[in-house]
Order: sequence, then C-alpha cells, then structure tokens
Amino acid sequence: MLIPAMVDVAARNADWQAFVMSALVTGLIGLLLSVAVGGSLSEGLNMRQTFVLTTLSWMTLPAFGALPFLWLGIGYADAVFEAVSGFTTTGSTVLSGLDGLPPGLLVWRSLMQWMGGVGIIVMAIVLLPFLKIGGMQLFQTESSDRSEKIVARSIELVRLIGVSYLFLTLLCALAYWVTGMSVFDAVNHAFTTIATGGYSTHDVSFSYFTNPATAWVAIVFMLIGSLPFVLLIQALRGEPLALWRDPQVRAFFGFVVLVSLAVTVYLGLQHRVPFGDALRMSAFNMVSVVTGTGYAFGDYTTWGAPIIVLVLLLKFVGGCTGSTTGGIKIFRFLVFFGTVRAHLRRMVRPNRVLPESYGKARLTNELSFSVLAFLVVYMGTVGVLTLVLAGFDLDLVTALSAAATAVGNVGPGLGPIIGPTGNFAPLPDGAKWILSFAMLMGRLELFTVLVLLDPDFWSR
Amino acid sequence: MLIPAMVDVAARNADWQAFVMSALVTGLIGLLLSVAVGGSLSEGLNMRQTFVLTTLSWMTLPAFGALPFLWLGIGYADAVFEAVSGFTTTGSTVLSGLDGLPPGLLVWRSLMQWMGGVGIIVMAIVLLPFLKIGGMQLFQTESSDRSEKIVARSIELVRLIGVSYLFLTLLCALAYWVTGMSVFDAVNHAFTTIATGGYSTHDVSFSYFTNPATAWVAIVFMLIGSLPFVLLIQALRGEPLALWRDPQVRAFFGFVVLVSLAVTVYLGLQHRVPFGDALRMSAFNMVSVVTGTGYAFGDYTTWGAPIIVLVLLLKFVGGCTGSTTGGIKIFRFLVFFGTVRAHLRRMVRPNRVLPESYGKARLTNELSFSVLAFLVVYMGTVGVLTLVLAGFDLDLVTALSAAATAVGNVGPGLGPIIGPTGNFAPLPDGAKWILSFAMLMGRLELFTVLVLLDPDFWSR
Repeated sequence: MLIPAMVDVAARNADWQAFVMSALVTGLIGLLLSVAVGGSLSEGLNMRQTFVLTTLSWMTLPAFGALPFLWLGIGYADAVFEAVSGFTTTGSTVLSGLDGLPPGLLVWRSLMQWMGGVGIIVMAIVLLPFLKIGGMQLFQTESSDRSEKIVARSIELVRLIGVSYLFLTLLCALAYWVTGMSVFDAVNHAFTTIATGGYSTHDVSFSYFTNPATAWVAIVFMLIGSLPFVLLIQALRGEPLALWRDPQVRAFFGFVVLVSLAVTVYLGLQHRVPFGDALRMSAFNMVSVVTGTGYAFGDYTTWGAPIIVLVLLLKFVGGCTGSTTGGIKIFRFLVFFGTVRAHLRRMVRPNRVLPESYGKARLTNELSFSVLAFLVVYMGTVGVLTLVLAGFDLDLVTALSAAATAVGNVGPGLGPIIGPTGNFAPLPDGAKWILSFAMLMGRLELFTVLVLLDPDFWSR
Repeated sequence: MLIPAMVDVAARNADWQAFVMSALVTGLIGLLLSVAVGGSLSEGLNMRQTFVLTTLSWMTLPAFGALPFLWLGIGYADAVFEAVSGFTTTGSTVLSGLDGLPPGLLVWRSLMQWMGGVGIIVMAIVLLPFLKIGGMQLFQTESSDRSEKIVARSIELVRLIGVSYLFLTLLCALAYWVTGMSVFDAVNHAFTTIATGGYSTHDVSFSYFTNPATAWVAIVFMLIGSLPFVLLIQALRGEPLALWRDPQVRAFFGFVVLVSLAVTVYLGLQHRVPFGDALRMSAFNMVSVVTGTGYAFGDYTTWGAPIIVLVLLLKFVGGCTGSTTGGIKIFRFLVFFGTVRAHLRRMVRPNRVLPESYGKARLTNELSFSVLAFLVVYMGTVGVLTLVLAGFDLDLVTALSAAATAVGNVGPGLGPIIGPTGNFAPLPDGAKWILSFAMLMGRLELFTVLVLLDPDFWSR
C-alpha cells in the first residue's frame, strides 16, 4: 500500500493519503493479531486449523486490500469485488475510465494481482498437495510434508519462488517496454501478465497497444505464468528439459496450439483475416482465456457463435498446477481421460487389470476418485451459481459466463454487460457479493472451502 | 406399423399405404435376419456382444421407424430425427401443423414413444445393471444375471412389466377421456405420457386442453412414468409402501414438490398469478421437464430469467432408474452427495472410516467411482455437443439447451427456435444428425455407446 502511495505522491495526486491510511490500519491490526496469537502458531497446525487458516487468509487479504477503494469513495460491494478479483488474479473489474484514473489506484490493482499470483504458487506447491485437494496429492513432495527439517527447505523453496517470480516480472516489463509500452504501462502489465491476472491500465485492455510484438510478448509471458513454477525454476537454472518431461506441460502446449490454430483457420475462412493477424488475435485471446488471464484484444464475441461457445468452454480449462492460473487445470483432464478409459475397458473385460499412470506416477484409486469428485463439484458449483445469479434477473448467457469466469478466475464474461468490452459494474450488489465468494471458492479449489461448510468439520 | 395403417384406413386417408409398405419392408428384413442369425443367438451373448447388440438395436429401431416418414416425403435427417426422438421418448419434433396431420402419422409418433418406453424399462432392469453402466450395478438383481433359470424369471418379469404398462396406459387414457379429451387425443397422449415421451397431437401441446383436471391427470401420470417400474408393479399388487421405502422415490418426490412450490411462489410474487393457476402451471411444466416428458403448457420461457436457467438445469435431473425417464437420474445424485460428503470428511480426518450407504446397500468404491465418472462424462458430453452444434452457427442458448435436452431425452430446448413453443425443423440437417446421435447416447446412458468408440474394444 505504501508503493501506490509513493506513486501518487510522485504524481502529486491527493489519493496517497488513502493508501497511507489503509496501510496504517492494516499494519496496526496485523501487529495486534501478531502479538495476540503469533506465539501459538509456532507450535504447528493440525489439519483442521490448516483448512480454516487457508480460507481465512484468502478472505482477510482482499478485506484489507479493499480499504483504499473504500477510502476513495467506492461502495462496499464494488471495493470487495475489485480486491477479491485482484488477489485471486481473476481480473474481472467494476471500474471503468481506467485511462483517467490516478496512477496509485492502477498500481494497487496490479500489485494485488502480482502478490496474489505468488501466493497462489506457494499455496499450490506447499499447501494443497498436503490437503489432498482434488487430486493434488499427485504433487506431494517433501515440501508438502510438515516435519521441521522440511519446513526449512520449504522456506528455501519459497525464497527461490520469490526471486524467480521477481526476475520473470522484470524480464516481462523490459520486453513490454522494448516493444513500445511506457514504463508505467510496462510495469503494471508485467505484474498482471506473470500473475495471469488480467487487470489493465486501459479500458480497451491490449487493444490499446498497436505494436504486434507487444501482443506476442503478452502471449509468451501469459504462457510462462501458466507453467509449474518449480519446473520453471529448474529451467531458469539451466534445465529446460525438465519442463518438457512434465505431462501437463506437454498437454497444455499441445492444447493451446491446437485451439489457437483452429481459431486462426476459422478467422481466415469466415472473416478473411490475413494469417498473421488472425494468428496473433487468435493466440492472444485463446491463451488469455485458457490461462485465465482475461486481457482482451479485439472483441472475440463478434467473431461468431462457435467462438462464443468455445470461449465459454475454455474458461473451465486453466493451465498447469503450481502456477498462477485458475480453472480445472490440465493435469485433472489427463487423470480424467486415463481414468475413464480404464473404467470403460474394465466394464468390457472385468478380469483384465490395467494400471493407469500419470507421467511416472501410478494413479491410485483414491487419486482418480479425488479428481472425478473435483470435476463434478466444479461443474455443479458453476451450475448452482448460474441459478443464483439468474435470481438477480441476469440472463442465461450473463449468469452462466459470470459463474464460469469467477470460479475459473478468468476475468471477463460473455454477453452485452460483462463481455470482454464491458465490465461488472452494472450488476446488482448481491450478484457482486456472490461472484466475490465464487472467485475465492475457485481460487481455493472448492474443497478447501467446502469442508468448512460441513457441520461435521466443526464437531470434536 | 399396421396399427397406424388401420387408423388411416378407418379415416379414409391414403397414407395407410406408406405404413403397410414400411411394415412389409421391416417384416421382410426382420425375417431374413432372423433366419440368418437367429440360431446363433440362442447360445447366449458374451459381454462384448451384449454391448454391440444393445447399441445396434437402438439404432435399428428408429431406422425402420423412420420408413413411413420417408414414404410420406419427409427428408432423411428429419425422418430419422423424429423416429429417434420417438423411440428414445425424447419428444423433440421437426413436424409442425400437427393438428392438421393425418391420424395415422400422429398415432405412429405416439406408438414409437410408447414402445420405446417399455423397451427402456426392460433395458434398465435387465441389461444396464449387468453392464454396470454408471453405477447401475446398484440395481443388480437376479434378473440381471444370465444363468438359464434366471432367463425364465426375466421373461416372466418382462411379461409383468408389459401387462402393467398396458394397464397404466389404459388408466391414463380413461382419465384423459373423462376430463374431456377426445378418444383419439386421450389414447395418443396416454401413450406419450406413460412413456414420459412428450409427443402431442397439437402444436400448442397441452395448452390445447382447457380443463384444469386434464393438466393434473398429466402431472400424475408423468410422475407415475418416472417411478421404478418393478416397485410400481409391487404397488399395483397391493404393496404401495414398497415405493416409499425406495430412497430415490422419496428424493424424487421431495425434489419435484420443492421445485414446483418454489416456482409457484415466484409466479405469484412476480406475475401475480392466482395460487391455483400458478401451482398447476408450475407443477405441470416442472414435472414435464424433470421427468423429461417435454409437454408444454403455456410458455415458461416468458416467466423470467431465473425460470429459464432453472429449466436448463432441470433438464439434467431425470426421474428414477428403471422407469421411462432419461437424464442423470435421482439415484446418481444421492450417491454423489453421499460420496462427496464422505470424501470431504476423509480429507479432514483421514483416519476415520465412515461407511456410505444407499438405502440398505453399502456403497462400494467401484460404485461411487462409476457414478462420478458418469456425471463427468455426462456434463462433458453436453459441453462437447454444445460446441459441435455451435459449429452450425447456433447461438449459445440454442446449442446448449439442444445438447442438454437431447442427452437428457427431455424434448423442447430454450431460445426462439427450439423453445417450448417452437420446434427443431429450422435447424440445419447436420445439427439434426448430431442431435439424433445425442438422443441415442443419452438413452443408452452414454457408456454403452462410448465403450464401442474405444479401439481396444474391437481388439481380441
């Protein structure tokens, strides 16, 4: 909060006071909490405490992140929505006229996504595998363990993640600046690209930047932000093949290339767009949706009915686990396909036992089961949220795309209100609260929140 | 086919020739096939042959069922669509001006649904549990076994089903006639009510019948058509409590009552509809959608955004297994909820083992797994079909509702083209072929068809 304050001071904008006041309140409450319970935490957490603390942290962060917005006169529902969308790296926004907003506010939005992004990576590597969320036990490593030696190694891992994250952000900002962005835009967009967040400093998002190279820089760094961060670190240390050996990375790239090329061909045949332009527009928008970044570049909802349905489905996909992306994530699709194929074969030949595997790991029943349960709960959650949003008189396309984009932490929805050229401001406050909750649910991979809703969780 | 021929002869309509010719072709090919391979079948079928034969039967029936339509000048795509929609008891139609069509044609449509309905019941009781389709092993009884003694009992069971089905149809026709339908309408609608099919003899479907009692007769018999037929037989033999002891029956009634009352209240508050009318309109349409019948009574798509989304979701639900309904079916939801609750509790307290159960049956891992896999594949299939249909330039609402209504064997879709007051005629032929395939997929509970698409199935 002191960073946007300094930016506003430098720009001689009075908003700096809002950020300083928010920083004071946040710091004070943080200090008090730390004094009150800091000691007891060092004893280690049990399973239930870990669940509660994970969800509480992700609810507390946006609560304080919303303070500057409140100070600047934005309503409660809008301020919380914008902060949740920030920290969860969703990128849906209720603000418009971004180009004319004070720089501190814009930096704060970008920073929330940047901090959220690294938080997600750490959570996905250190916490979720240990909690076994939706098949994440597949990624259990030493760092998911809790014995004391391991904690030391975890801290080392977190330090490594932080350094690499910062390095990639600087690299991205530099690349943006080289292709013609202002320093301010380059830094802001680097923050929200590497975090696959999607907040922009312009209402028209990436349509503002006319240099084709800028779009390609965004495509490359959105993809980098969707890769497993541990493998990215290995690659940065000179082992790029580690990335390629990972089944989810291969499938992710294969899928993105396939979808981008299909849409490129469609744009060429249907709208006679030249190949280079078609490829750039297609790759940018498909990567933006699949990775859950949510930048817009042109209005893909005018490209035709097949693209609209495709984009809706892509909102469910997501990138690799251990990255900043949301959604179902590639490894769950791989486990699902392997599991269902084996299931179909068992139906026909019950006596033949076929081992299923993911990379080198054997798939256990428990793991396949976790993944299937996650998929059903994911789609069920989107269905229920669609119904609840329709209760606010939102039409089917708006309600369904809002639910899918929130749970998948993507960003824009579909339809005339919340489409890539619109924003979420016109929605009723109730719908904004629901969507804020949905973004948190999605970010915490559903089960982390759902276990808390079971009365049995709270019994001794 | 000879029945509609007789109806047309009685009505002095030249169409009788089309039905007689179709009957001759069907009879001749049937005779040839029977002579050619009839002997080898008596040896019993192995697992793979059972899968192939089940799918082939359901493809062959509508192929021959479409013959009279072809003879009467209806195009291939339309004729097959109408016949598939008939035998699968879906009820989507490409025909309009029904009120002016010759009686034989209308009777043939109703008869296809009626025959399809009893076929579905027998398949669900005798075949699917043995094939273990999507958790159907839960309903394995002696009749799902294949030893010779059991076959005799199966034949007795099938006879009982046939007699009860006929009895309920007559009862329904009588009730319709008493409430003011003509004999012709009463018989036709009895055929398509008990089969939860939904073909009507009028373009405006049940809006044609003004007596409130007619709507209630339809509601009661649509519900009866959604109950497990074996328990229905027990009830007819003087043991009505058998129905109530079944978990899926209790959940089904609870759900239908809840949804109907919610929509009744909504109609009262939002549109000031008097309670009696609101309850009848709500119950009729909600029961029609949940049971996958597909009759329309008024146009519920004008009731508001929440109702449209609700109807879309209800298309997925379905009735009880062992009935004529399609969709996911209630028992899978019950297994899913039990399974996920236990899964969430295991995540928090890994060492506590909690048995899950369905009625008196313990849920095995294999069974929960089958149900979860079915749910994911079901929703995935609807997603993929939506994308394929959008490829024919159908808008999101039309494509999604068409996919959901076809796989769920419901009937009407949503949106201006295929909504409850429209029909499927304006869709491109390609979309009609896709939807015909989707209706069969849904009717065969997906997995029966999917196993055939795995190359491994065809290897030795």
